[in-house]
Amino acid sequence: MTEFVMENCKVNPKGNLEFAGADTTELAGQYGTPLMLLDENKIREHAALYRDAMKKYFTPDSYPLYASKALSYKGIYRIMQQEGVGSDAVSCGEIYTAKAAGFDVGKMVFHGNNKTEEDLRYAVRVGIGRIVVDGPEELEELGKICTGLGVKQKIQIRITPGIDPHTHKAISTGRVDSKFGNAIATGQAEKITRAALKTEGVELMGFHCHVGSQIFETEPFINASAIMMSFIADMKKKTGFEAKELNLGGGFGVRYVKEHPYFDYEKAIEELSVKIKEQSASLNVKMPDIMLEPGRSMVAAAGITLYTVGSVKEIPEMKNYVSIDGGMTDNPRYALYQSQYEAVIANKAGQKADYVCSIAGRCCESGDLIAENIKLQKAKKGDILAVFVTGAYNYSMASNYNRLPRPAIVTVRDGHSEVAVRRESYEDLIKNDV
Amino acid sequence: MTEFVMENCKVNPKGNLEFAGADTTELAGQYGTPLMLLDENKIREHAALYRDAMKKYFTPDSYPLYASKALSYKGIYRIMQQEGVGSDAVSCGEIYTAKAAGFDVGKMVFHGNNKTEEDLRYAVRVGIGRIVVDGPEELEELGKICTGLGVKQKIQIRITPGIDPHTHKAISTGRVDSKFGNAIATGQAEKITRAALKTEGVELMGFHCHVGSQIFETEPFINASAIMMSFIADMKKKTGFEAKELNLGGGFGVRYVKEHPYFDYEKAIEELSVKIKEQSASLNVKMPDIMLEPGRSMVAAAGITLYTVGSVKEIPEMKNYVSIDGGMTDNPRYALYQSQYEAVIANKAGQKADYVCSIAGRCCESGDLIAENIKLQKAKKGDILAVFVTGAYNYSMASNYNRLPRPAIVTVRDGHSEVAVRRESYEDLIKNDV
Repeated sequence: MTEFVMENCKVNPKGNLEFAGADTTELAGQYGTPLMLLDENKIREHAALYRDAMKKYFTPDSYPLYASKALSYKGIYRIMQQEGVGSDAVSCGEIYTAKAAGFDVGKMVFHGNNKTEEDLRYAVRVGIGRIVVDGPEELEELGKICTGLGVKQKIQIRITPGIDPHTHKAISTGRVDSKFGNAIATGQAEKITRAALKTEGVELMGFHCHVGSQIFETEPFINASAIMMSFIADMKKKTGFEAKELNLGGGFGVRYVKEHPYFDYEKAIEELSVKIKEQSASLNVKMPDIMLEPGRSMVAAAGITLYTVGSVKEIPEMKNYVSIDGGMTDNPRYALYQSQYEAVIANKAGQKADYVCSIAGRCCESGDLIAENIKLQKAKKGDILAVFVTGAYNYSMASNYNRLPRPAIVTVRDGHSEVAVRRESYEDLIKNDV
Repeated sequence: MTEFVMENCKVNPKGNLEFAGADTTELAGQYGTPLMLLDENKIREHAALYRDAMKKYFTPDSYPLYASKALSYKGIYRIMQQEGVGSDAVSCGEIYTAKAAGFDVGKMVFHGNNKTEEDLRYAVRVGIGRIVVDGPEELEELGKICTGLGVKQKIQIRITPGIDPHTHKAISTGRVDSKFGNAIATGQAEKITRAALKTEGVELMGFHCHVGSQIFETEPFINASAIMMSFIADMKKKTGFEAKELNLGGGFGVRYVKEHPYFDYEKAIEELSVKIKEQSASLNVKMPDIMLEPGRSMVAAAGITLYTVGSVKEIPEMKNYVSIDGGMTDNPRYALYQSQYEAVIANKAGQKADYVCSIAGRCCESGDLIAENIKLQKAKKGDILAVFVTGAYNYSMASNYNRLPRPAIVTVRDGHSEVAVRRESYEDLIKNDV
């Protein structure tokens, strides 16, 4: 039996790849390619897992914030709202999208190493739940804006715990030399905490940290939470302020390929809770409400991308290229991070995968690849290729490089499908050209 | 005197950076940031240089094709048309944009390792000048389409000469193991030539090759042209077909930073012409009309990007971060290729640049950097940062990652400025969301 890296994928009786109960070759025919498919039940399942485990193991008021940057479009905020999950945003564009979808931005947390004055003003005005203040200049500016508007904005302060999670450098953010946050080691974290307590117009709720992304060990998270709890205790002792909230960010790993381990999110939450409760008792600080910011682990494994195979190029004794009608424009992760993916020829899903090849995008650039030297079913022009685990950081990072329109997003639920984001048109491409 | 990597930049009497005769701090105020500025005279100068040198050194019917993928928007095609320059396209999106601008697509050449049937049909229908056929399957499909439409389409065949230009792997495309073209070494080039001569509906005009990008030596181009001329001679001997055209692609290097050499495009064209004429005589083949496809060298050094500085973060004894209101979303080249850039604080352009810092984008990602450990004027919030030589592969590769709107493009000519591409709005971001 063929086993795929995604459990919601199987070979149907026709020998085609079935995804979330639907025949992918039929979806390709119906909606065209390239096409991003999202398994809505899978997203809801992940949301519920985080929501329930966090209430159970942390405190009743602990909850997950979906990290928008993994995949932001109107429909995703509707799903999160229905599942009782909050969200984080890193730009006004994300806040705007959430608002347009009817999302309660009171359950939204606003991040960023460089929020503009306009950003802060917009976020405060729409009633954003929390602003995670990244540095002293932002704190000062935010204080002025809030005083001017006559509001008291709830904030968290971004702390750099000084953890190196040994992941890809580009997605490792908890080290002291990061562009984000205020380091404990340098005294900058204490300094901004003292400043926040004196700043009018803001109400300090607690602290935030984020150690990195695509991490498969619980250790860095446990170490970070220990450091953060010690910092909370230290601030209590020094200033009298006792944090009500501790936001531990995101970063739980996702199994993109079979070589990646399974990561048990609930178990990680349980282990984290044990450590935090221990620290809470031993350091004599109140157990804070915990927030986590899962993005990748909410949506990555809920998505696949379908492409149509164009040319198949065999260079004798060198390499085989299977060219598709998308590539780095809709999935730049291989070009950026050499990320690994698995794939299957959807209309030959039950056949043996023993054809070693590289998947080439259609951009006029040699680096436009999705995978190198992977095993596929023997491919030919007109076949449908499905790339697994593409729900996160694919569509959200998509470009119009080579003036290619971005794909549509279609959600699938128990075999029923509907368009969530329409395919870009050529007219869209030139809409702002004078 | 402060000397910049771009000759059209200087410090004006106010101490601000002047670009193409305009005060950049005024442009930032007028149009907002991030903002891409293009020096229109510089683009026209490059276009004229190629146009005139190619006529002078090659044949009267030789001409440059602007490589659209470097930067495609309606206005650029108008400039190229006015300068008597053709263009290449790698997608229907580029052809569509050119057509919408009134560009004569009869002077357009259509490339791509994976053109879809729809692409080919569209290109033939609008009367594209040449289609560069990448492989035997495409040839067969194109033949059928043209026969069906009752037209004869002029084509070139893409040949892989087997040259390694020792540039970045992602932009090195002339090697035998490339996803592009038909290798001479494997016999595939000859095979497809023979097939093309027998295919109804197409007229073989000659051959195309492209060795890579951002190359500072003439040697790889000369080697490639020698190989191509030998191939032309070989085909003449074996099939009787004598190529009328030889398209040598693009790839001339651009001086991004002061450590990069100056590349004399005219001298390179002259050297190439000497070699090709020599070969033409010694191999007894007619001197073909030459096409070149400059993209980067047309527009890169005509562009700068302006940003507003937000937070400045100093981590004692570690690193200084100057955060800007753009980043990998409008310029992903550092994240993708670790490309080098130089920059200046536009409103302090005359001051000493001795502040070592990294330029961080505003994306929620540690890898979102434009430069690391470069020297700038001491920066503070509200300053305007100008990054040099951003005309190519910046806007064209831009994304909405973190749901950030893409910047505007403003052309500047003798101090006069006008919008060429309007800034994206938040409404634009959600226009296709259901």
